Amino acid sequence: MVVAFKEENTVAFKHLFLKGYSGTDEDDYSCSVYTQEDVYESIFFALSQYRQLKNISLGTLGYGENEDNRIGLKVCKQHYKKGTMFPSNETLNIDSDIEKDCVHLDLSKSPQDWKNSSFFRLEFYRLLQVEISFHLKGIDLQTIHSRELPDCYVFQNTITFDNKAHSGKIKIYFDSEAKIEECKDLNISGSIQKNTQYVLVFDAFVIVICLASLILCTRSIVLALRLRKRFLDFFLEKYKRRVCDADQWEFINGWYILVIISDLMTIIGSILKMEIKAKNLTNYDLCSILLGTSTLFVWVGVIRYLGYFQAYNVLILTMQASLPKVLRFCACAGMIYLGYTFCGWIVLGPYHDKFEDLNTVAECLFSLVNGDDMFATFAQIQQKSILVWLFSRLYLYSFISLFIYMILSLFIALITDSYDTIKKYQQNGFPETDLQEFLKECSSKEKYQKGSSAFLSCVCCLRRKGSEDHLIPVT
Amino acid sequence: MVVAFKEENTVAFKHLFLKGYSGTDEDDYSCSVYTQEDVYESIFFALSQYRQLKNISLGTLGYGENEDNRIGLKVCKQHYKKGTMFPSNETLNIDSDIEKDCVHLDLSKSPQDWKNSSFFRLEFYRLLQVEISFHLKGIDLQTIHSRELPDCYVFQNTITFDNKAHSGKIKIYFDSEAKIEECKDLNISGSIQKNTQYVLVFDAFVIVICLASLILCTRSIVLALRLRKRFLDFFLEKYKRRVCDADQWEFINGWYILVIISDLMTIIGSILKMEIKAKNLTNYDLCSILLGTSTLFVWVGVIRYLGYFQAYNVLILTMQASLPKVLRFCACAGMIYLGYTFCGWIVLGPYHDKFEDLNTVAECLFSLVNGDDMFATFAQIQQKSILVWLFSRLYLYSFISLFIYMILSLFIALITDSYDTIKKYQQNGFPETDLQEFLKECSSKEKYQKGSSAFLSCVCCLRRKGSEDHLIPVT
Amino acid sequence: MVVAFKEENTVAFKHLFLKGYSGTDEDDYSCSVYTQEDVYESIFFALSQYRQLKNISLGTLGYGENEDNRIGLKVCKQHYKKGTMFPSNETLNIDSDIEKDCVHLDLSKSPQDWKNSSFFRLEFYRLLQVEISFHLKGIDLQTIHSRELPDCYVFQNTITFDNKAHSGKIKIYFDSEAKIEECKDLNISGSIQKNTQYVLVFDAFVIVICLASLILCTRSIVLALRLRKRFLDFFLEKYKRRVCDADQWEFINGWYILVIISDLMTIIGSILKMEIKAKNLTNYDLCSILLGTSTLFVWVGVIRYLGYFQAYNVLILTMQASLPKVLRFCACAGMIYLGYTFCGWIVLGPYHDKFEDLNTVAECLFSLVNGDDMFATFAQIQQKSILVWLFSRLYLYSFISLFIYMILSLFIALITDSYDTIKKYQQNGFPETDLQEFLKECSSKEKYQKGSSAFLSCVCCLRRKGSEDHLIPVT
Amino acid sequence: MVVAFKEENTVAFKHLFLKGYSGTDEDDYSCSVYTQEDVYESIFFALSQYRQLKNISLGTLGYGENEDNRIGLKVCKQHYKKGTMFPSNETLNIDSDIEKDCVHLDLSKSPQDWKNSSFFRLEFYRLLQVEISFHLKGIDLQTIHSRELPDCYVFQNTITFDNKAHSGKIKIYFDSEAKIEECKDLNISGSIQKNTQYVLVFDAFVIVICLASLILCTRSIVLALRLRKRFLDFFLEKYKRRVCDADQWEFINGWYILVIISDLMTIIGSILKMEIKAKNLTNYDLCSILLGTSTLFVWVGVIRYLGYFQAYNVLILTMQASLPKVLRFCACAGMIYLGYTFCGWIVLGPYHDKFEDLNTVAECLFSLVNGDDMFATFAQIQQKSILVWLFSRLYLYSFISLFIYMILSLFIALITDSYDTIKKYQQNGFPETDLQEFLKECSSKEKYQKGSSAFLSCVCCLRRKGSEDHLIPVT
Repeated sequence: MVVAFKEENTVAFKHLFLKGYSGTDEDDYSCSVYTQEDVYESIFFALSQYRQLKNISLGTLGYGENEDNRIGLKVCKQHYKKGTMFPSNETLNIDSDIEKDCVHLDLSKSPQDWKNSSFFRLEFYRLLQVEISFHLKGIDLQTIHSRELPDCYVFQNTITFDNKAHSGKIKIYFDSEAKIEECKDLNISGSIQKNTQYVLVFDAFVIVICLASLILCTRSIVLALRLRKRFLDFFLEKYKRRVCDADQWEFINGWYILVIISDLMTIIGSILKMEIKAKNLTNYDLCSILLGTSTLFVWVGVIRYLGYFQAYNVLILTMQASLPKVLRFCACAGMIYLGYTFCGWIVLGPYHDKFEDLNTVAECLFSLVNGDDMFATFAQIQQKSILVWLFSRLYLYSFISLFIYMILSLFIALITDSYDTIKKYQQNGFPETDLQEFLKECSSKEKYQKGSSAFLSCVCCLRRKGSEDHLIPVT
Repeated sequence: MVVAFKEENTVAFKHLFLKGYSGTDEDDYSCSVYTQEDVYESIFFALSQYRQLKNISLGTLGYGENEDNRIGLKVCKQHYKKGTMFPSNETLNIDSDIEKDCVHLDLSKSPQDWKNSSFFRLEFYRLLQVEISFHLKGIDLQTIHSRELPDCYVFQNTITFDNKAHSGKIKIYFDSEAKIEECKDLNISGSIQKNTQYVLVFDAFVIVICLASLILCTRSIVLALRLRKRFLDFFLEKYKRRVCDADQWEFINGWYILVIISDLMTIIGSILKMEIKAKNLTNYDLCSILLGTSTLFVWVGVIRYLGYFQAYNVLILTMQASLPKVLRFCACAGMIYLGYTFCGWIVLGPYHDKFEDLNTVAECLFSLVNGDDMFATFAQIQQKSILVWLFSRLYLYSFISLFIYMILSLFIALITDSYDTIKKYQQNGFPETDLQEFLKECSSKEKYQKGSSAFLSCVCCLRRKGSEDHLIPVT
Repeated sequence: MVVAFKEENTVAFKHLFLKGYSGTDEDDYSCSVYTQEDVYESIFFALSQYRQLKNISLGTLGYGENEDNRIGLKVCKQHYKKGTMFPSNETLNIDSDIEKDCVHLDLSKSPQDWKNSSFFRLEFYRLLQVEISFHLKGIDLQTIHSRELPDCYVFQNTITFDNKAHSGKIKIYFDSEAKIEECKDLNISGSIQKNTQYVLVFDAFVIVICLASLILCTRSIVLALRLRKRFLDFFLEKYKRRVCDADQWEFINGWYILVIISDLMTIIGSILKMEIKAKNLTNYDLCSILLGTSTLFVWVGVIRYLGYFQAYNVLILTMQASLPKVLRFCACAGMIYLGYTFCGWIVLGPYHDKFEDLNTVAECLFSLVNGDDMFATFAQIQQKSILVWLFSRLYLYSFISLFIYMILSLFIALITDSYDTIKKYQQNGFPETDLQEFLKECSSKEKYQKGSSAFLSCVCCLRRKGSEDHLIPVT
Repeated sequence: MVVAFKEENTVAFKHLFLKGYSGTDEDDYSCSVYTQEDVYESIFFALSQYRQLKNISLGTLGYGENEDNRIGLKVCKQHYKKGTMFPSNETLNIDSDIEKDCVHLDLSKSPQDWKNSSFFRLEFYRLLQVEISFHLKGIDLQTIHSRELPDCYVFQNTITFDNKAHSGKIKIYFDSEAKIEECKDLNISGSIQKNTQYVLVFDAFVIVICLASLILCTRSIVLALRLRKRFLDFFLEKYKRRVCDADQWEFINGWYILVIISDLMTIIGSILKMEIKAKNLTNYDLCSILLGTSTLFVWVGVIRYLGYFQAYNVLILTMQASLPKVLRFCACAGMIYLGYTFCGWIVLGPYHDKFEDLNTVAECLFSLVNGDDMFATFAQIQQKSILVWLFSRLYLYSFISLFIYMILSLFIALITDSYDTIKKYQQNGFPETDLQEFLKECSSKEKYQKGSSAFLSCVCCLRRKGSEDHLIPVT
């Protein structure tokens, strides 16, 4: 909700302060101008809108104070120190050091006066950028409905006219940074329900549950590690040989580790959430990422219980068995993928929007592999240079064919193969490991262990022994 | 046709009453304004358009009466009871109770008078919403061509200026609810064909046929259940053991149940349709859903007859055999899917249009799995917070890779495996169940049953025995 | 080129005669108006533009004569015979017979006069449509460069204001039909190359080649049929049993039939092309379809020669062997597909653009199966009725899951299976048929046949015997 | 950066000189006009904008000199020599020779004077095109930050009003060609870091490394070829038979050839890059293609090292083994693909944007095969001709079904088959070739060779013997 409020305010500011704003940003900039007259008009439009703000704006806005504690606009321009330039004669005389001039405009003067000031006579050939910055204060009344206290905001708005490219096109950026501040003087009457306590109690309850689960799982892991140590010693003593690595790993239940991570995340996330509610913190993103990821892990954890049924187990085992092969294959394919990514970025970067920066190239190629946006990618290449055009065709056809027809098919071959293997194992029995042989021989000692363990891990973890039984040696 | 008429009228109203309406809605709202002047202009535009409606509108519209039986507009505004607010000083003095003021504007006064009324001096900082509502009456003449009587409509239009967010952007909603009423005084001359009887007769015929089919299929099911009972008793008596579950289910023909459901839907749907024709009901949606679904089932039912050919049968059997495995696997995959859905909703919700609510997230992820709209989903994440941006990349790459490369491949492995199994069965014979062995031994008793059954299920169902023969024990 | 000329002229007409035309059609209509004033303005705009055509238009246009051989505009309006209507009282008094009034406007009167005429006082509540039609003549000079004679065109333009829905929205259709006529008086001087002869000669050459190929292939087929007859008689006599169907079909070479069809199409297409060149015919579409399809067949025919290599042959055989299975399976899947198509059309038709008519539904579902436009299809459902919305979710999820996860996977299973079968055959030899056994025994007779056949089919067909050898019995 | 500068300048020019330019090009042309008035206005707008350029433009522009060394605009018009045309009478009297009139407009005269000149009285019925061309000079100051010297540009701008179609629509093209020239008189003061030396040193270092790698790899290849020759002689002598082709190829390490090509490309690319830096060349595209491709090859080369691990090797071997089969199959599928491409181009070309030229058809079909843009392709067919519409449905459904359901599935079958083969080989050992048998017998001689080779190929190539060991005979 806070994010949406900031977002809507930014859109409203763009409509108020940018002349001819169409409602959608053009690219990373909001709009662009091409003539000197338009630049002046855009600047003075913003200035005059700021002056009349109270009579225009629909929001609950007021003027805020600058960094220098003054109310008003601050206009800065950057330009090369001095210079004369005659493009017709290809003559250039310029000092490449950059100068920055600023002026503070308060509300006392009329915009007409500003227009006539010499500051606003811009020399475009050496101008680098004009920056108009001002602070506005606002109150988010929306929160009254759901929570007690409305938030006060300080918006640090900056309009930047960027002429660094000197290409005849000035890009206008609008940047609005919103800071939440505690309102100084709040006086709210009327009947509002104060049910935040219940939410708080619920949060605390979640934390307690997770803490319990965390402790129990950690205890199980610790016990398992101890058991492993005893087993290793015993095995070494009795059979005079070391237990293989895969067997050693079986003592550690992967699901428990998942639960521990998930619990940790939930606890930290919930604490963050309570702090945000109490207005001590504003780190929404981290909190939502922690809680979101823990939710994902909880759902994934449910799969464990499905694994107790024979029929479901095949599928889980297949996925487990094929995972290392798939990852290994991904490493190979990843090399070619990376090669294509870099190659595309270097060659097609200047001619194609989707190849402008490395991560976009990676995303674009990833989409292509999965059959998305193919025609658009083909069509967007600008036909400026025939050489690049030909290269792009070769590049795209070869990449798509290679990945879709060979690599994706190979994935299917890998998974089908794993599935067949697992199915055969289920019919004929899994190949036995040292550990399992040992377990068969002496199950009496184990049973004692199981009894105590089962009691301890009752909240979030099912019986250890049971899950150990269905672990398979992934070869 | 009725839906299209309502739709077009709503579009026409939006063009008539909303100032600066572009022809397409912006989001869930129709348009939005950002300055105080625009708000006033939009309000008075709607008022004056309403007043001149007769001279402007192209439709057959007239003023309708309000809930309080008065002709005219009703303008309501909601605002906080009282308040002063100085955002600059972060001072707020507000009564959070909401007050609602209404005024009724009839056609006698000119819009100029309205403008000067104190009601329309809005205090935006405490304004919550302005609502303009009015009723219009219309006649749908289009129906004259196809049916006897034109419908009369009452349109309950509401224009809402929503300032609840207090973000400087007021969203304008246009809501038009159309009610069908019987016209009071209809006087239609001229030559129109009255062929509605034929449609009525056809509908009745369909109902009769479906009823017959319904009865016969139900009878078959009942007979089959009786036979099962006798078989169970007999088997228990003779072989001293219970018949297994799968065998018991074979007595009930799934196709018959499909036919019964389809028939029931057609009958209810057709009755609804006749009622709608007779203008007693307006529940178009339910009627079309019933008839549509029954059509789907009828087509699916045709597959049964293809199953009598050996070559087609392989495919149907494969699908039948693999269905439980696929569903079981879907349950596993569904867990991970749900986890990702919740996680995406929590974390990416505020930053991405497609993750705004839970069902959209589910649809978006479903599309991604099937390779649609991938690049767009990647690109739409707002780069406001670098943390969220990184998370979104990890989230999307991991989700897509996991589902497309592992889970979809596993589907193929499942189906290929089922196909091979069925093919082997067809070559070497299916594994025999108790029931089939029993049937082999004593087919004389069965033949009598078949004779009677064949006669009864003549309308919609083919011979029971025949279909029983090709049932397979899905293991 | 002719199609492009017509297209561009229509676009130019729309810009000239439609007021406020945006450059793209809205739907199947070009634009729409919502107020009475706009209707009048649109009508008189078209009239006045027609009058000033010579001073406005960039094309080489002149006024053409009407069906009644008069120059000028013909404006017709259709309305219900008489009627009064008071929607406020729900009172309607209408004669449902439709009256048509026409008026002919020539160039002598000024548009101002037209405006005042009583004909243009429209009563919208009973108006059905207004139609403005006029003929224009134009010359396509573009052809001068490539061919001798420019074409003269008659454009029959009709602007229709459609108010049949009486929904307050009048849709404006622009319809331009272009007829090619021979120009009466052409006088072209200057130096133009007359190289149409070469094209003509080339066309004739193609026809001759195709005719030769056609005759030779037909001869081969006829000879093969005779041979079959003799073989059947001989076989019946010697082994006392009939030859199986599959063996009988092997005598007829499928490739020859392909060549015959392709040749026939090329010949007819080329003749049509020559006729079009000679301006006797204007049936471009049929000509291009015939020539295009024959091109497709020629390319497909090339595959035959690849079949002579062992390695390529596997693939062709696999496709041949799996085709009947795939088609059979398509029949099953087609039932479900048809069911979904009808169901979607009935239920979702009024709420979703893509479900408006049957063939669009089929295309939409087909795209969904192949993973295209999924999210858009989900998102476009209007949330008017919660029941329909829920149904649409169920409908789309079930359809996509069923088709992508089960049916597409089954295709892969089918093809993989066929591939394995063919591969095994190639290693162990194909199962021998009666025909092949017979051929082994007595190849002396066959050799004579081969000798003569090889000579005859030298132009387009390779040796018959050779291709017979690699035919496989598709079981 | 240079490409972006040119691009932005072109956009700025379009906004400056084209009246009513919307910001995006319509098709391959920038905008279009439909009335005589608009043509005149567009022409004089461009002229007057050129005249006021200094006061309007935001870029660092100056007038440049023409080819005839004059400053000013050159306006040319092409038209048929003479002609009268009365489309109403279908009378045409035209001289098809084309005349070209030019006029030079300098800055001395006012646009008002130009308007009245007889040159600008266009006779549209015989006008072919109007061309306004002018030269502008500009300086790219952006480079000051990163490099020493700003570039001077000459922009050769041409605005073309194309009336060749005589269809009533004049298309306006804007063409801007930018040439980089050395500025004549540069005088830059201020503090700029001159760190180009470091880049230069780095480039040189890359070249040296690549050269070393190139030499070593070439040496290895040469040695291998010599060894092959000796082996062939020895084998022929000892076993009295020739070594098979596959065995001969094993002597040549494919990876080395990859490294050599990659090195060559890097070296040439780096040299080009240094030349471009030194402003001797402007061939950016070739340079980026060479460097990009070499990057791709370097990444692909990394896969070799993964091949030393057993688990990774399976996958690489599978890809290697299946490649020839896949290519062979692609040849077959390619025939059908080409057939469809030509057929679609011939028939659907005039009715569908995506079928306009051959390479677009190929791209469109390629996208369709991979499940992209299907619904859009279906929907875009214009329903002008019912015959073509039907054909397009048949064409698209058959193409998509054939390719997605049969051919893509066959790819999977191929790859799965290769994977199974390789897996079986790894378990049971690869079939031994003559070469491998020979190597087993006498490994003493080989060891000597290995010793010397290992030393030589130390920089970029791993041991030859090692890589030879894992080469498999692709059968």
